[in-house]
Formats: sequence, structure tokens, C-alpha cells
Amino acid sequence: MTIEVNPRNASENNLEALERGRAYCAAHHPHLEAALADRYDARLPGFSQSLVEWAYGRHYSRGGVDAKTRQLATIAALTALGGQTAPQLKINIEHSLAVGATEREIVEIIWQMAVYGGLPAAINGLNAAMDVFDAQNEQ
Amino acid sequence: MTIEVNPRNASENNLEALERGRAYCAAHHPHLEAALADRYDARLPGFSQSLVEWAYGRHYSRGGVDAKTRQLATIAALTALGGQTAPQLKINIEHSLAVGATEREIVEIIWQMAVYGGLPAAINGLNAAMDVFDAQNEQ
Amino acid sequence: MTIEVNPRNASENNLEALERGRAYCAAHHPHLEAALADRYDARLPGFSQSLVEWAYGRHYSRGGVDAKTRQLATIAALTALGGQTAPQLKINIEHSLAVGATEREIVEIIWQMAVYGGLPAAINGLNAAMDVFDAQNEQ
Amino acid sequence: MTIEVNPRNASENNLEALERGRAYCAAHHPHLEAALADRYDARLPGFSQSLVEWAYGRHYSRGGVDAKTRQLATIAALTALGGQTAPQLKINIEHSLAVGATEREIVEIIWQMAVYGGLPAAINGLNAAMDVFDAQNEQ
Amino acid sequence: MTIEVNPRNASENNLEALERGRAYCAAHHPHLEAALADRYDARLPGFSQSLVEWAYGRHYSRGGVDAKTRQLATIAALTALGGQTAPQLKINIEHSLAVGATEREIVEIIWQMAVYGGLPAAINGLNAAMDVFDAQNEQ
Amino acid sequence: MTIEVNPRNASENNLEALERGRAYCAAHHPHLEAALADRYDARLPGFSQSLVEWAYGRHYSRGGVDAKTRQLATIAALTALGGQTAPQLKINIEHSLAVGATEREIVEIIWQMAVYGGLPAAINGLNAAMDVFDAQNEQ
Repeated sequence: MTIEVNPRNASENNLEALERGRAYCAAHHPHLEAALADRYDARLPGFSQSLVEWAYGRHYSRGGVDAKTRQLATIAALTALGGQTAPQLKINIEHSLAVGATEREIVEIIWQMAVYGGLPAAINGLNAAMDVFDAQNEQ
Repeated sequence: MTIEVNPRNASENNLEALERGRAYCAAHHPHLEAALADRYDARLPGFSQSLVEWAYGRHYSRGGVDAKTRQLATIAALTALGGQTAPQLKINIEHSLAVGATEREIVEIIWQMAVYGGLPAAINGLNAAMDVFDAQNEQ
Repeated sequence: MTIEVNPRNASENNLEALERGRAYCAAHHPHLEAALADRYDARLPGFSQSLVEWAYGRHYSRGGVDAKTRQLATIAALTALGGQTAPQLKINIEHSLAVGATEREIVEIIWQMAVYGGLPAAINGLNAAMDVFDAQNEQ
Repeated sequence: MTIEVNPRNASENNLEALERGRAYCAAHHPHLEAALADRYDARLPGFSQSLVEWAYGRHYSRGGVDAKTRQLATIAALTALGGQTAPQLKINIEHSLAVGATEREIVEIIWQMAVYGGLPAAINGLNAAMDVFDAQNEQ
Repeated sequence: MTIEVNPRNASENNLEALERGRAYCAAHHPHLEAALADRYDARLPGFSQSLVEWAYGRHYSRGGVDAKTRQLATIAALTALGGQTAPQLKINIEHSLAVGATEREIVEIIWQMAVYGGLPAAINGLNAAMDVFDAQNEQ
Repeated sequence: MTIEVNPRNASENNLEALERGRAYCAAHHPHLEAALADRYDARLPGFSQSLVEWAYGRHYSRGGVDAKTRQLATIAALTALGGQTAPQLKINIEHSLAVGATEREIVEIIWQMAVYGGLPAAINGLNAAMDVFDAQNEQ
């Protein structure tokens, strides 16, 4: 059985996964779990908890690489993946600015994707970034 | 703070996520977590636990749809996504057979993907299925 | 020549392909071919017939797996493929409800795609499903 | 009912779809349907006929654009789609040479995909083309 | 060092890349570089020049295949890639008409993509083409 | 005409694009252009120069973001894009180590992609990384 692998760590880490996710969200996106629960949980039980546990408890809060690099790498992937990820790309551009990435760093990473995902992906990504920058500068 | 959303449920479900994942794996893929830990955890701490928690604790063990449909839907997606998912497609064809899908149901679902993902995806998927069927029939 | 492969079956099945497609559409989507013909055939001769023959005569009417599973597998693939298939995803969610899938089964299959196609694909798929459910509940 | 749309045309074209596909294959890929039937039809009834009808009867034999352009456009798409379509890309490079495309035209179209699908797609496509050219030059 | 490979050619061709791109744009898209510079260069220095050099100086102006085939192949790829490339698909349908492709050739190439990228990609591509044709016929 | 946009900069930057690309390659991948020329240029004239100019002269040498972040973002995108980019992923993992990324940072970024591109993409990426690490540790 797998339970011997890491017996003490297991329940602790499990507790930490959702807790770490919630702590991360409390600091960075305070109303996220409640908003997700309102919108999705009646139809898909446990959705909000699962997302917070996985994305924030099991990824963004891991350490091992700094938050800004993690965010810029996410932007790279969402740009390269293209259309299906447009809403998430804008959110992650906001998150990248929030953890200290500059506008220049963000467009550099997006434009780099012209090499790997093609010009349409990169240009659509640049347009998303400029929409976010313009919206923030208007505030 | 988000913790008020579902206070009693929260820690319980969190406990259940990894536990449910491990229970599911114990029944269906008994050595998976240990094998993943051996291969990946030294370099990527917590990987094996995180995968069991997410894929098996937060998805395959959810209920709400029967196991065979869940598996066949997974095969559909892996077929449509194509090349990047070939190893996972073969594993999920094995898992589909294990939860009672017939060879015929599996190839029907794969061939359906010709409509949505194109002929190359469907034919590559059929070839993967036939490799799995032939390997199992040889045993 | 290939004609020997299945001589009697050949012309019969060929006749059946378009006819089976039309019979399937008559039962499930009665005005589809006429609507497609109106919109596309002047520019692309034979389009409507070809689509009915292929999608409905050669796939949905095949048998070998039940209609609901076939539909839910289609939803899985369209969710995983993402942006390019958003209009088709909504149509197939409607079709899945029409062949007896529950709202719960549909969101379960879509959410399963978080494992294989990533969170953005799954969340966009959930949003499409909720739009369809809400539109139907308003009627 | 949709059957009124094009009543006389319907059965004729339907007959023509598989027949046109078979005529096209007889001229260009004489043993294809038999080979497909041998490999797939026992498990997936009607597969070989369906593929010949759809790909060759409903697409390659359509007219409206010359065969070489149709083939080069196919190569473009298979290059841009990438990994999942590698076996089909090689086959279509052979088909493009067979309908009169030059090696130069083929690599030009593949390299053009660096703009739209990124460098990895284009370079992997060039490598596929060079494998095909080298294999043919060795004969 | 790589500089010995093609010493005379190197600076000449380099000069030619941006110059060829600009000459191509002057003939086909006269205000493109200025428009791109206005929109992007303040945030992403050199963007407009780089795009003209790469897309038009290093690809569209290459020769080796005629302009119409190059354009139709581009349409094929953008159709197959799907959602992420919708804006670019419309632009390239306009460019294809401008270099002499007929409406029929364009829809033939798009419909061919049903075989390789699936029906959703092809139908979304047809819809994009019909929007472009209708807009041009209204003028 | 576009030439007024940046008259003095234009020819300078053009000169710089290939030169910058060559300088970058001289420092990091000294034999790349010659190797590419040997393999591809006879069939696709100008390929090696064009790739050095675009990838290294117009992207990697740009500045605006540090080299390590640029490399890790590239790894993120190649992981998320999946199968078609496997050879390029391994090369970029080597390049990331060469500019100072740690093994841990690399696997963190790849694993992050489980959230955005799904588990198959992430696990295939981890396997690629472990192959590279093992090969380097054996030397």
C-alpha cells in the first residue's frame, strides 16, 4: 500500500494543501473561494475547494521558484495555448503586475512566444496585455 | 475571508481528498503513489501526493457519473488532444477496460473524435487502442 | 481494386450513410440539413449533405455505444480542445440533455477535463454549460 | 423534413460520394481501402468505407481548387497542428510530390508555418519532409 | 564562429530582409508598419520592424511558391489551429482574395480542414470566410 | 510610407538583428548557424540566417527581462504546447541550466503547467527534464 511512503507527512501535507491554498488566496485574492462557491458549487459540489487546493495550495504556494517567475511562466503558457485561455491570460497579467513584474517584462515574455507559438498567439497576447495595462492606468 | 463558506465541510473534505484518492488507487492502481514517489518526489517534493489527491481524490472518485462514462470521456479527450497525450491515452484505455468498457465501445468513442478532432487524431487513437487490445490478448 | 472487400455491403451501406444521417436528424435535429444548405451550399456545393452523411450517418447513428455516452464523450473532447470549439460545445450540451444526460453528469465530465486539458479549458467549459442550463431553465 | 432540399441530387450524390472516393483511390492509392479494412474493420465496422467516402469522396475529389494546392494546404495544416499529425504529414508530403509539387514548394509551405505555428512546428515539419525526400531519393 | 558560413551574403541578405519586407508591405499593406509602430512599439521596442522583417521579409517575399498557394496554405493552417487565430484568419482571407484566390478556392481549402482539424474548426472557418465575403460584397 | 517611422534606427537595427543573433549564438550556441546551414539551406535557401536573426537577434538578445526568466517562460510554453515541441523542450531545458536555472526551478515551472495544460503535458515535461538531468549528471 502507498500509505507507508510518507506516513507522517501525509495527513499534515493534506491539511496544508487546502490551508496553504486558502492562506495564499487570503493574501492575494481574498474573495476568490467564496465567489467560486457562489457560482459553481451548487451544480458541482466541492469545486471551489478543489480549485483553491490544487491551483493555490499545490502550485502557487509551493516555493522553489520566485512568484514573479512563476507568474511570467504562466503568462507564457497561456499566450502559447491561445484562444481557449484568453480570460485566464488577462487575470494572470493582473496577477503578474501584483507580484512585481513590470509591463515591459510581461510584453517581453508574450512576444517571446512568437517564436514558439506563432505570431497570432503572440499578437493576441499583446493585445490582451495592452487592454489590462490601459484599464489599470485609467483607474 | 473564505473560510466561512463551508467551515465544517472544509477540513473534512480536505482530509477526504487525499484519503479518497488513496482509497481509489488502493482499489484500482495499488502501487501508483509509491511508483510516482520513487520517480519524481526527490526532485519535485510532494508530487506523488498532489497527483493522487487531484486526479483520484478530486476527480475519479467524485461520483455524479458512472466510472465507465468517466473513463470513456477521458479517452475522447485524450484522442482529440492528440500527440502530447499518447502515453496517457494507452493507460486510460487499459483503465476503461478495467471498469467494464468493451473494446467496441472504446473504438466507437475514439472514432467519434474524427468529427471533432480530425482524422489524424482518430486514427492515431485507434492505433493506440489496437496496441493495447493486442497486448492484452497476448497475455 | 478495393471493391471486392465487401461487395454487397458497399452500395447498401453507402445508401445507408446519408439516409441514416437524415433519419437521425429527422428524429433529433429536424431542420438541420435545410438550414445548413441555406447558409453554405451556394458557396460550397454539397456541404449540407456531406455534413449530415459524415457526422450523423457515419458517427452518431453507428450504435456500439449508447447515445448518452457518445454525447458526453463529445462534450469532453470539445471542452479539452477549448476555444475553437465553443459554439459546438454549447450545441452538444443541449444535445446531451436531449438524450437524457443530467446537468450533474455534464458538469462532472467537463470538470474531469481539468485533469487532462487544464483549468482554463474546464472553467470555460463549465461557464458554457451554465449558460445553456440557465437559458433552458428560463424557458 | 430535410429530404426535400435536393431530392434528385440526394441519392445520386450519395452514390457518388463513396464511388467518387473509390475512383480517386483507385487512381492514387489503389490498395488503401483494402488495407484499412484488414486493419480496422473487424473492430470498427464500416471504418474503411467511411474513411474513403469522407476523405476522398467528400474532399479530395471535390474540385474547385487544383490538387496540388489542396495537398500543399494540407501540409500547411498538418505542420501547424504538430505532433499529433506527424505520420499523416509524411504521407501527405508523398502525396504532394505525386501530384506535382516540387520539394522546394513543399519546404516553402512548411517554413511559412513558422509564422503561424511557431518554430518547433516548422522545424519538425522540415525534418519530416527531409526524411521523405531522402527516402525517395534513395530508391 | 558561424560568420564564415556565408560572409558576403550575410550583411546583404540581412539588409534585404527588412528591406524586402518593407517593399512587400509597400505593395500590399502600405500602412502596416506605421500602424504597428503606433500601437505597440512604445511598450515593445522594435516590434513593428521585427514583424515586417520576419513575416514579410523572411516569408511572404521568399518566392519558391506562388503567392496564391502561400496564402491558401496559410488559411488552411489558421483554420486548423482554430480559435486563437480567428482575427488573423479573416485578414488572410482578405489577403488571399487580393492575390487572386476565388471565394470558391478559399472555402474549398477551409472545408478540406474538416478532415484534418475536425468539423468545428472547418465550420468556424467557413463562417469567418462568409463574414469577409459579405463585408466585401456590401462595399 | 513606413520608412519615416524610425529612419535612422531602421538600417542600424536591421544590421543589428542578424549581428545580435550571431553574437548571442557565438556566446551560447557557437556552431548553431553552421549546423543549420549544413542541414537545411540547400533545400530552403536562407533558413539558417533567418532562424538566427529571428530567434536570437529578435528575441533572446532583446533584454527587458533577464535570461533565466526568458528561458523558464519558454519551458513553460513548450510544456503546455505538448507533443509537437518535445525536441525543443529538451534543448531549452539545457539552455535554462546554462543560464543558471536550477533543476528545482525547472521542474517547478513544468509542474505549474499541470494547472494550465493538464497533467499529461506536465508529466511528459517532467520526463523530458529528468532525461536531460540524468544525461548531464552522467557526463
